[in-house]
Amino acid sequence: MKGLWLENNQLQLRTDISIPEPPSTEALVRVLYAGICNTDLELKRGYYSYTGILGHEFVGVVEQGPEYLVNQRVVGEINAVCGHCRFCRTGQPTHCENRTVLGIVNRHGAFADYLCLPVENLHPVPDNVPSEVATFTEPLAAALEIQQQVALGVNDRVLVVGDGKLGQLVAQTLALTGCELLVVGRHREKLANLEARGIKTGLAEAVTDRAFDISVECTGNPEGFAIARRALRPRGTLVLKSTYAGNISIDASSLVVDEITLIGSRCGPFPAALQLLATGQVDVQPLIHARYPLSEGLFAFELAQRRGVLKVLLEIS
Amino acid sequence: MKGLWLENNQLQLRTDISIPEPPSTEALVRVLYAGICNTDLELKRGYYSYTGILGHEFVGVVEQGPEYLVNQRVVGEINAVCGHCRFCRTGQPTHCENRTVLGIVNRHGAFADYLCLPVENLHPVPDNVPSEVATFTEPLAAALEIQQQVALGVNDRVLVVGDGKLGQLVAQTLALTGCELLVVGRHREKLANLEARGIKTGLAEAVTDRAFDISVECTGNPEGFAIARRALRPRGTLVLKSTYAGNISIDASSLVVDEITLIGSRCGPFPAALQLLATGQVDVQPLIHARYPLSEGLFAFELAQRRGVLKVLLEIS
Ligand SMILES: [Zn+2]
Ligand SMILES: [Zn+2]
Ligand SMILES: [Zn+2]
Ligand SMILES: [Zn+2]
Repeated sequence: MKGLWLENNQLQLRTDISIPEPPSTEALVRVLYAGICNTDLELKRGYYSYTGILGHEFVGVVEQGPEYLVNQRVVGEINAVCGHCRFCRTGQPTHCENRTVLGIVNRHGAFADYLCLPVENLHPVPDNVPSEVATFTEPLAAALEIQQQVALGVNDRVLVVGDGKLGQLVAQTLALTGCELLVVGRHREKLANLEARGIKTGLAEAVTDRAFDISVECTGNPEGFAIARRALRPRGTLVLKSTYAGNISIDASSLVVDEITLIGSRCGPFPAALQLLATGQVDVQPLIHARYPLSEGLFAFELAQRRGVLKVLLEIS
Repeated sequence: MKGLWLENNQLQLRTDISIPEPPSTEALVRVLYAGICNTDLELKRGYYSYTGILGHEFVGVVEQGPEYLVNQRVVGEINAVCGHCRFCRTGQPTHCENRTVLGIVNRHGAFADYLCLPVENLHPVPDNVPSEVATFTEPLAAALEIQQQVALGVNDRVLVVGDGKLGQLVAQTLALTGCELLVVGRHREKLANLEARGIKTGLAEAVTDRAFDISVECTGNPEGFAIARRALRPRGTLVLKSTYAGNISIDASSLVVDEITLIGSRCGPFPAALQLLATGQVDVQPLIHARYPLSEGLFAFELAQRRGVLKVLLEIS
């Protein structure tokens, strides 16, 4: 089969990969669509070491697996877990100590004709959700993780820093909580997406210092972190939703003086994400920048790296 | 009156300072004892800009003020607040936007014969608490702030990094929660203080990675931060209890992947601290390294800066 293969920071389109044979606990999924995410770009740049097929945002059709799933359209949670470590036993499987992660850690990913995942990772996609929309389930679930970690109410003033793919999903999910929301970014046309949904937006320069209860950093760069930090009132909470190229330099004393909470946030609940897509409460269509066949995957990657480009999808089968 | 005066990073013993005249809402306190804290040393090193009398840990006797307080032995909360800002109105006076802070921000401190503080800041000291013990009320209250911010249970594995003044107080208060506690440091004789109270201790090198639910950083240096960070399990909480000389460099991506919470912690509840001193549940006597009269204050400062020295007290009147 075809697949986008990463090795020594080189991405290549291979056509000689064997179709995987799923172990008895896993299903074989034929990939329909997959989305290119910043994590994929960071893996390609070598921020984390990984060799194999990239990709973790996908929708596909089960070709082999338990009867109730075969021919179902599915999305899949990306952490394949051991089931017996202290995190699996305490209901925190995304932190399983022995996990493999689709297209990220020791498990071939979704930028290929086929992938395998444990049966329990798969969620059927409601019929009314188009496949390209369902591709956003994984990042949308990650956005929803924020609400699992931080209690949000209608009186909370919340700032989202970043108007990219992640910021857009985070903003839409936070808007549903009824909190007082402002999204700042550097791209007027991206912010317009959100304005069209009634979400208040502004340019990053316009953020008032010490005015927000919660800020969510979605840019993955130190400038975004600095904006999110200074926007917080004392005792405010800064949610780190993005990964970073290297270390960031933090004024830790000011965190102590202002008693700031900083919290890292990663994978979230798939069922809730699918529901938001099925009911149309979150609209991902404006986030799709372009679609390319897997055979043009290398170009799609080039494009996804460009400033200002939102989601690039691979149309696989 | 005499006082230790900081100006342009120079500490001097002055004898020409006027006794302050308290405004009607404040009391005049004759200082009995005051403690030298790391914040004082950092102020002297110029980490924060401040001009005036240093010192914020004290016990004294009210000489002018409301009748019920006159001649009372008191300790005092260090933040003098406005009463009407958004933090004062929401029960968070330690974050008052218009605060002055005793010996730290725009308010003369306790290393002098007299000081002034708002009447509501003062707490009478129970008769059975010796004055030099009462001097520890402020840092002990700060240690108790941790429990106001983080829920601690008997099943929590908690690591305290640092066996200095702050680490010793933090360790003693955390031990009272019944949590599974380990304190690590670099000084066997300081750790022995804690061992004598039944608290488990070890050398910093011996900390198991990813084994603790909560870690409390009490060293104020990047090495201590690194130990506290790597000791945490995924979804663990790192409490920053110390201030830092400069920025620290943090692997923010790992905070995201492990969904770590980092929380800054500052001033805490005085009444609870006084109670722990009155009942003897916390023992501060072993933390007193030496006592000097105010006239030897400059030497006392020199001593307090030396590695391995615990609390140096100024015996003022
Ligand atoms: Zn992703
Ligand atoms: Zn596991
Ligand atoms: Zn202090
Ligand atoms: Zn105030």
